Parts: sequence; structure tokens; C-alpha cells
Amino acid sequence: MLEDLKKIVFEANKMLPKYKMVTFTWGNVSGIDREKGLMVIKPSGVDYDGMKADDMVVVDMNGKVVEGDYNPSSDTDTHIELYKACPEIGGIVHTHSRFATSWAQACQDIPALGTTHADDFYGSIPCTRAMTKEEIAGSYEAETGKVIIETFKERNINMMEIPGVLVYSHGPFAWEKDPLAAVKKAVILEEVALMAYNAVTINNKLGIMQQDLLDKHYLRKHGKNAYYGQKKNK
Amino acid sequence: MLEDLKKIVFEANKMLPKYKMVTFTWGNVSGIDREKGLMVIKPSGVDYDGMKADDMVVVDMNGKVVEGDYNPSSDTDTHIELYKACPEIGGIVHTHSRFATSWAQACQDIPALGTTHADDFYGSIPCTRAMTKEEIAGSYEAETGKVIIETFKERNINMMEIPGVLVYSHGPFAWEKDPLAAVKKAVILEEVALMAYNAVTINNKLGIMQQDLLDKHYLRKHGKNAYYGQKKNK
Amino acid sequence: MLEDLKKIVFEANKMLPKYKMVTFTWGNVSGIDREKGLMVIKPSGVDYDGMKADDMVVVDMNGKVVEGDYNPSSDTDTHIELYKACPEIGGIVHTHSRFATSWAQACQDIPALGTTHADDFYGSIPCTRAMTKEEIAGSYEAETGKVIIETFKERNINMMEIPGVLVYSHGPFAWEKDPLAAVKKAVILEEVALMAYNAVTINNKLGIMQQDLLDKHYLRKHGKNAYYGQKKNK
Amino acid sequence: MLEDLKKIVFEANKMLPKYKMVTFTWGNVSGIDREKGLMVIKPSGVDYDGMKADDMVVVDMNGKVVEGDYNPSSDTDTHIELYKACPEIGGIVHTHSRFATSWAQACQDIPALGTTHADDFYGSIPCTRAMTKEEIAGSYEAETGKVIIETFKERNINMMEIPGVLVYSHGPFAWEKDPLAAVKKAVILEEVALMAYNAVTINNKLGIMQQDLLDKHYLRKHGKNAYYGQKKNK
Repeated sequence: MLEDLKKIVFEANKMLPKYKMVTFTWGNVSGIDREKGLMVIKPSGVDYDGMKADDMVVVDMNGKVVEGDYNPSSDTDTHIELYKACPEIGGIVHTHSRFATSWAQACQDIPALGTTHADDFYGSIPCTRAMTKEEIAGSYEAETGKVIIETFKERNINMMEIPGVLVYSHGPFAWEKDPLAAVKKAVILEEVALMAYNAVTINNKLGIMQQDLLDKHYLRKHGKNAYYGQKKNK
Repeated sequence: MLEDLKKIVFEANKMLPKYKMVTFTWGNVSGIDREKGLMVIKPSGVDYDGMKADDMVVVDMNGKVVEGDYNPSSDTDTHIELYKACPEIGGIVHTHSRFATSWAQACQDIPALGTTHADDFYGSIPCTRAMTKEEIAGSYEAETGKVIIETFKERNINMMEIPGVLVYSHGPFAWEKDPLAAVKKAVILEEVALMAYNAVTINNKLGIMQQDLLDKHYLRKHGKNAYYGQKKNK
Repeated sequence: MLEDLKKIVFEANKMLPKYKMVTFTWGNVSGIDREKGLMVIKPSGVDYDGMKADDMVVVDMNGKVVEGDYNPSSDTDTHIELYKACPEIGGIVHTHSRFATSWAQACQDIPALGTTHADDFYGSIPCTRAMTKEEIAGSYEAETGKVIIETFKERNINMMEIPGVLVYSHGPFAWEKDPLAAVKKAVILEEVALMAYNAVTINNKLGIMQQDLLDKHYLRKHGKNAYYGQKKNK
Repeated sequence: MLEDLKKIVFEANKMLPKYKMVTFTWGNVSGIDREKGLMVIKPSGVDYDGMKADDMVVVDMNGKVVEGDYNPSSDTDTHIELYKACPEIGGIVHTHSRFATSWAQACQDIPALGTTHADDFYGSIPCTRAMTKEEIAGSYEAETGKVIIETFKERNINMMEIPGVLVYSHGPFAWEKDPLAAVKKAVILEEVALMAYNAVTINNKLGIMQQDLLDKHYLRKHGKNAYYGQKKNK
């Protein structure tokens, strides 16, 4: 069942240790088959080293395991909420990568401070509000997804234009049109988190970058007038 | 004598350079055979490179060498005090890993600032008080163990719920039910030390994370209602 | 066409991942053939991994592709402006290396703080002014080159004595007499950016190093009285 | 001539890239034959990669080349001053290692903040005063050695008890009884520089560690009552 998607999700998960995004088993990638309404995700707490494509777990949109020998990632319900909220998302990554998690622990947005950020995220990467006692005691992982969605709605942010978030006192999620692109976004999120850390510790009065430059860099890579890369003549 | 435990302790010691936890010989792992009342520990000042399982030293609970060609780690008496104080400890690690040692040098607890911390440590990781002139001049290594135990007693902390400590102006110790689990805890301690460093240098007014979230993350991985990983259906 | 220069530019580009100067495709090196008035540069958005010397793109001094299957780097027009402004430049590098980019995001010069800096850069590495709305909306990449040149002119800096710059909210460019030397300069720029970051976060009142020491170190490696290395007796 | 010492000095130099202590050619190790009054040192500006033991340069105590195809390190005269000032020194290392150089650029001592420091350096690692215009314009490299020696004399520090120094706005030198031990000291100097950096950026009010603990750790590894390692029963 879903052999191709399992392979892709497996490969995307294996990219996390390759890019030094995880310690031990601290991360997971999922992908979705929108037609079948099924999600493929890393099993919970399984080492990346011996892991096989067949170990990936297939769940339905209620989080019920449809196929697989293992429990799915404990973050499964967060992934489901995000897929349900935004139909353009095809892959989601959660990690505890160092600098992004540090910003989440500092309970602050990653401010848009330069073109490295603007090339992939069209504005500051938001940090959610703290979750309430009730949300934490309830369906915690689903509520985590809901507080992410609330954050994007309240701030009126398009989830595909800023394809990442920091969960308050927790860590980053990133997403994209497919699982491999989502991992790439997660790596970039970590990179811009590091650079923003350095920049604000040099200059703690630093404001957000100018909007014109943010627009220019985001839009030269995204949308109908994009001109970066090989799209035009290959 | 204790061939299996020696192998485990040897392997646990070899994990320290693998996880970049040590420079030169700055670290040691021990394990205990509770029935025989004997501890196995790395020899003092011996390189990790050529080291063999047979080089591990067996000592009794008075620190007397029972078997082995080498002197045991100079920290042997600290390990013994911890084993004596807490019967659930099966393995202990001491390192000078960079960020944990930096917090010890800053003479501050590693504050619980996020779920990465809460997943493995049920609260801030305490820093001991400074040792007195008399403790330092006396049985220094045993006194180091005693000041650790005093710290946990005075603050009413369960040693298995916060399985690590910073010794004031010195560095971290971590422990667990066996030597390999203890090394894993030491690696996580270093990781949360790094993230806490980043978070407080972004925001030096940062308080401890909310208790509800700390409870949630610690308890979804520990205790009878844990649901993380593969325990339930494998 | 220009096979030798293509090989050199290709090798120089491959040095960027080797020295950990780039994430994904975030960087480019070019070289110039002054006699023919042609520039060779990395193709835009192409991975370093499978890239071949033949993938390098040849453009003329108007940015028109003369040979090559790919689009040239999107930064091509910035390179062209620099080559036109300073006839001694033979190679140019642009990266988003971490610490140099962090200083650019902090919108500050990299202050000359020590001999490591003075050995290769004869003074602080300037950060340009912010670009105007019009410059950004216009021929952005060419304007980027122009604001670099303006910065050196206004401050009366010789481009070969301080062979690098930070573009405001963007990142570093470095140059030298040939592409391989330019990559080496970019690596050193990153190294001095890191050391300057550390130094100012230890001591945020730190001023520029003494001029005598800056002169001494720069001039013992550059110019007619240089005595560093093997130039004199080999 | 001096084939054994050349091999040792060569191997000690090759340890610098192994321990990530150097970028490009930024470092040098020397050793001395006290009986013959000759020093062996790395050639100036030569890459570590293709370097051979035979490329090491033999100089006399006036800095005159006695044997070798290359110019000796430009820092040769600094090494000579240190050998002349302290007869117990058998090997000297100069690098631009990142954190030690950052402290030198911050123009501050590396404060003794913990046992990692105390195990190898019996007190804070001093930073010299700034050199005068005349010293810089004169025999600069010899004057560099002289200002180091002045620093130790004025502060009444035994050069073998604190076997390292920071030269103001420049970088670290370390020394020991032989070249390999000196490289080890240089690596430890870098490690304690990093930890001190972290500790003071967590807590910028931090004072020096307690003297009793400094004594204890230094003296359990050095001098006639040392008990660390395998010296006693092997």
C-alpha cells in the first residue's frame, strides 16, 4: 500500500540525520496521498540507522493505523491537523533542530533579517502562543496543530508563503508541497534561525528587514514572475 | 570477572568520543553489579583509541581495586557515592562536554525551557553549591558525590526523574538504569545545555517553561501512562 | 570556449562545499577573461554534487549568455559591475556563509579586531548602506554591484586591499586576482566574521585594533616589503 | 641533521589540522634541541597537506637558517625568545584557533572558571599588553616574545604552570616540555577558551573560580603529590 509514498517519506526521514537535524530519534517526516486520504509517517521512537521504507506507518485522517507494524510518530495528530487545514501541503517535518528550537524556547518569532530568510520565508517565522492547561491536558498533539493554524489565521499569514512555525517552548514544524521539499525547508529554517541568533546577539535593537527587499527576494524565487534557477529555459 | 558488564561499560565509554562528548581522556562511564556489590569503571587517563574491554577496572564499594591492570578513574569515589545513595542507578557518566560544563562554570542550573528538556529531565538540572575548603581538602571525590546528593535532597528532587547534575565550577554527571542509557542521558543533557544557552542569550529575562507542558512531555515518555515509542504494541 | 577558465571556475565553486561555505546551492564563483571580455560563472540553482565543468556559463559584459546550457547565476549582474569597476579583480565569490551573513543581517561592518583580520583585509570589512526602493525595484542585481562600488568610493577604500564586502541585510562578496584566491578570501572573511562575533559578544565596547598593528600585519604579507611565506628564496 | 626532532615537529604540526586548530596555514609548531642550541620549526606559509618531515627548517638561536629549503615560520623569533626565557620549554605552538583568538581580540585574559581549566592551567591565561608603536616597527616578532615574557614576569607567573598566553589583538601561544605535549596544551587552551566564552556570555558578572578548587585540580595532576592517571602503578 502506498509503496512509492513510503519510499519518499523514508528517504525524507533519512535526510534528517544527513543534514544534522536530529539527535537520536528526535524528528519525523510525513507525506500525504490526498486522493486516498491517507498519510505516511515515521514510526515513533525508532532509530534512523536500521530503519527501512517498510517501517513507515500508514494512517487515515483520524490517526487510525491502516498499515504498519509500529506505532506512528507521537506527533501524528499534529501533522493531520496541518494537512486538514491547508490542502496545498504535501509533506511535513518536525525536528528539535538546535537553533530553531532555541528560538521556540525563547518564545519569540524568528525575525526576517535578511535575504537568506526572504528567499524561502515571506516574513518572520511565527512562534505560537503558549497552549492552555486544557489544551495540554486534552488531545495535546491535535491541539498543537490547532494552535499552529490559529497563529497563521490570526496573523493572516498564508501557510505556503511562510512554510514553517515555532511551537512555543517546543520546536519547529516545516512543510511544503512534498516530503523532500519539506525537509529542505526545515534545513533552511534551521539555517536562518542560526543567522538570526547571531544577528540579534550582535545588535539587540535590530528591527525586521525592509519590506521591499523581502518582497524582491521572495518574489524572484516564487510566483509567476520568478526568475531564479533554471525554470525558464530547461 | 564481570565480563559482560566490562563489555557494556567499555562500549558505553567508546560512545563518548562517537558523540563528540570528550576531548582527549576527559570522561568516564561506570556500571554496577548490584548483587556482587562491584563497580566497573574506565581506567584513569587512558586514551579511548587503543582501549580494550579488559582495561576496565573492577572496584568494590570502598573504591578498592578488585581486578584490573590500571588505576581506576580519579572520579571513582564520586561514582560510588551516587550508587550508594540511589539504588536504581545502574550506570553513571562524567564528562566535560562543552555546554553543560559552561553552565557549571556559570554556576547556574540549566533551566527547563522546552519540551526537549522535559522529555528527559523532569525539571531544571541543578547546579550544586560550591564545595567548602574542607570538602576540597578532604576526600574530594567522595565529597563531590556527597554534595550532589545533598543538592537533590535539599531540593527534594528524585534522582531518577532528573538524572543529571552540574557540579559547581566543574561539570556534569548523568546516570540511568544502565551504562548505555546513562551515556544517552549525558548526550541529551549536553543538547539541552546548548539550547538553553541559546535561549537565554536571546532573552535573558526568560523564566522556566510552564509546569503543565513540563508534566505533559515528561509523563508521555515516563511512568505508567507513557505512550511515546513502541512500548504498547511491540 | 574558455575551457581552462571554466575548469578553474568549476574547481573554485567546488571548494565552497568543501570549506562548508554553502548550504544547498547558496553560493557562486566567477572568473573573467579580461582580453576576451567574457566572464564564466556557476549556473543558477544547480546542485554542487553532480555539477560538471561544462555546466559553467559564459556571459559577456552585458550579462548576455554566450555559451552554456543553463541560466547563469542570478547574481551575474552584480559580478559584472564589480569586474567593470576594478580591473585588478580576476575572480569573485558570493556566499551566504553563516557568520559573514549574520554581520550583514546585523547591518554592521566586520570590525578589524586582530591580526587574523589584518593579514588579509587592510581595515574593517564594510557593510553597504540599505538599497533604496527604486534600486530594489530596478535592475536589482546590477544595483547591488553599484552600491558596493559606491561604498568603497565614499569610504576611499582600495578594493584590492579590502577584498570583501557585506551587502546590507544580504551577505558577503569577496574577490581576488583569480577565482581560487577569491574563494580563499571568502573563507577567511567567514573566519574573521566568526572571531569578531565572539570578540564583540565578550566585550561590546571593543574598538578597532591599533593602526600600527594593522599596518604591520597587512604589510608583512602584501606589497613590496612583504616577508611572509616563501616568496623571497624560492 | 636532527632527524628525530624534525619527525616529532612534523608530526606535531600535522596534529593541528587533525584537531581543527588551523585554517589554511595559520599555525606552527617548533621543538628545540637544547644541547645543540638548535630549533626545528615549520616552514612559513607551506600547506599542511603535502608537507614532509624534511621540509622542517633548522635554525640557530639567532634565527639563522642552518638547514632547510624553505624560509622558517615568520614567527620564528617569537619562539626563540620563549625558549631563551624558559629553559624547561621543549616545544611551542602558535595558532589562530577560534575561541582563543577571539579572547585575544577582546583583549582579555581567559579567566579560570572551572576544573577543566584548572587541570592544565594554574590560573587565568594572561593576555599581554598592547605592543608599542616602536615594538611593532622594530623586530616585531622578537618583541612579541619579549612582551609575553614581560607579562609572566610582571604578574609573577611560572611559565610552566600556565603554559599559554594570548598576545593582545593577535592570538594564542602554548608551550610544554616537548612539541607533542605543546600541541595538546594548545588544544586544551582552545577548549577552555570556548567554555569561558559560553560561561561569561551566560553570566557577565562571573568572577574567577575559588582558589581551593583551582589548587586541588591543578595539583592532583601536577607535582609530587599528583594522583591522576597511571603514573603510580605502571
